[in-house]
Amino acid sequence: MPLSTIYQSIQEDLVKVEDELRSVSEVDFSWLAKLLGYSLKGGGKRIRPALTLLAGKFYNYNLSCLLPMATAVELLHTATLVHDDAIDKSLVRRGRPTINRLWGEDKAVLLGDYLFAKAGEFAADTQNLRVIKLFGQTLMAISSGELNQSFSAFNLEQTRQHYFQRISSKTASLFSLATDSGAILSQAPEESVEILKGYGYNLGIAFQIVDDILDFIGTEKEMGKPIGSDLAQGTLTLPAMLLMERYPDDNPVKRLFHNEEKPKNIELAIELVRDSSIVQDCYRVASDYCSKACHNLNLLPDNASRQALMELANYVVSRKR
Amino acid sequence: MPLSTIYQSIQEDLVKVEDELRSVSEVDFSWLAKLLGYSLKGGGKRIRPALTLLAGKFYNYNLSCLLPMATAVELLHTATLVHDDAIDKSLVRRGRPTINRLWGEDKAVLLGDYLFAKAGEFAADTQNLRVIKLFGQTLMAISSGELNQSFSAFNLEQTRQHYFQRISSKTASLFSLATDSGAILSQAPEESVEILKGYGYNLGIAFQIVDDILDFIGTEKEMGKPIGSDLAQGTLTLPAMLLMERYPDDNPVKRLFHNEEKPKNIELAIELVRDSSIVQDCYRVASDYCSKACHNLNLLPDNASRQALMELANYVVSRKR
Repeated sequence: MPLSTIYQSIQEDLVKVEDELRSVSEVDFSWLAKLLGYSLKGGGKRIRPALTLLAGKFYNYNLSCLLPMATAVELLHTATLVHDDAIDKSLVRRGRPTINRLWGEDKAVLLGDYLFAKAGEFAADTQNLRVIKLFGQTLMAISSGELNQSFSAFNLEQTRQHYFQRISSKTASLFSLATDSGAILSQAPEESVEILKGYGYNLGIAFQIVDDILDFIGTEKEMGKPIGSDLAQGTLTLPAMLLMERYPDDNPVKRLFHNEEKPKNIELAIELVRDSSIVQDCYRVASDYCSKACHNLNLLPDNASRQALMELANYVVSRKR
Repeated sequence: MPLSTIYQSIQEDLVKVEDELRSVSEVDFSWLAKLLGYSLKGGGKRIRPALTLLAGKFYNYNLSCLLPMATAVELLHTATLVHDDAIDKSLVRRGRPTINRLWGEDKAVLLGDYLFAKAGEFAADTQNLRVIKLFGQTLMAISSGELNQSFSAFNLEQTRQHYFQRISSKTASLFSLATDSGAILSQAPEESVEILKGYGYNLGIAFQIVDDILDFIGTEKEMGKPIGSDLAQGTLTLPAMLLMERYPDDNPVKRLFHNEEKPKNIELAIELVRDSSIVQDCYRVASDYCSKACHNLNLLPDNASRQALMELANYVVSRKR
């Protein structure tokens, strides 16, 4: 099912999120306006703001605070992408040159800072102290997860526990913020807040696992960025870990992490993963997290949003980009 | 008068700010703990948290919100320094190697992000929505000021208006946040909030002008970083502007901005500024801002803090580092 169908019940309000995002680049300082416009231009799947709106649909759907929060989570996401690309010196994102490629890493760092602040301002517009606090904690989790990833680059001594810890901080925390805040802002009872928060968290884990699979089996055209970039950055993801487990003595991941013939070994690793059951095994793990995400949804009121959240979980494991 | 004497009335609570800053590095993830500990280790003048505490002394001095806010402004300041150093590829700060030099620019960017988030969390601990909102707006002002500086690097077509706009965003905004928030959190009447906010703003402008002077007349030992670094980065500060005005046809600033013999022309520019009345003229501008800062302080209750704010203004123009 395409995202547009899944988003149907919140489509109108997602358009308002786009309007808010567009308004962010309406600033006097023309260079800043240009950079903001470029970084916020469509192309993203807008899953995170959709999650906030969907999670807000079960009780008191109050757009005056859900709209700024949905905008805040998308801005926070964009800010982390801008910084990630600068750090990784990535050249392409969503099929377009990155900010750091066009304007330099220094501008990308400062633009990201501005976006973090703007996201914080939108979060503050909810006027909800609990949500504001969660917002700050999420940014802490994300940057600490990214630092963790950066410090463990090209380190082969990593367990699955490390992997799950890392993706929990760097990805699931923001998915969890999206649904958690939507629930809180709609004055959901605490049990429902927990269910929706857990949904976001588990969906986020599944989403990242699929991202990591697609870095092996996707195409550059679909993904909008080069394949194999995790390996190139020295990031050990689940497919690479499974490959290491299957070929413990000698394998291309080990070799390239020891800095031997990088491009060739990346290609070999991709081939090995594609030609094995590793992909299937990883998808099974992702599916399990999706099931876990949906497990308690039936305790929530039965409405179009509940259905949408179920379908979104299916989408996450079947997506091609 | 040394800072320790000026800080006397808030000395005890500044120690508590140090304790809070120390607690920030108590995290499980050992690399993060190390980076946080290093970046927050003393050596700074702690002017910004002192301003928050002093501004809070005129009405209802409520440490339970002033302490987190004072900590927040110092963390925000530290975060911007960490990012600035990464962007400028600076090697030394406060006489010590920078984070980017020791651990790389990527780690510095992520550490800065974490510090921004932690600062935001402390700001949220004030539970004051107005202050939280101001906090976000200040980070927006700072990063937009830094972006402005970055985009105008090596551009000779800059007026004083540009200069004041830039230092207003990148420095005065944080000084202004420090006093503004202290006043708001102590439930000062609006006129007093305005007076204290104006004090912080004007003091911040004066502080930055003196910083820009010291980059010409200081010593590397006193400053803890190389002299002439603004020129090396292509940042046109007030002393450099005055030099351009005095020697409009040909001068070392013009030459080095045209990328001719950089080190030699930086040295020449420093010599020319030192041997002229430019230093004195810039100090006069800074002093005027300090006078402006103090102008309305006598409308506030007469107490030790009022005296301290006056003395701090004197300190700012007489400091050597």
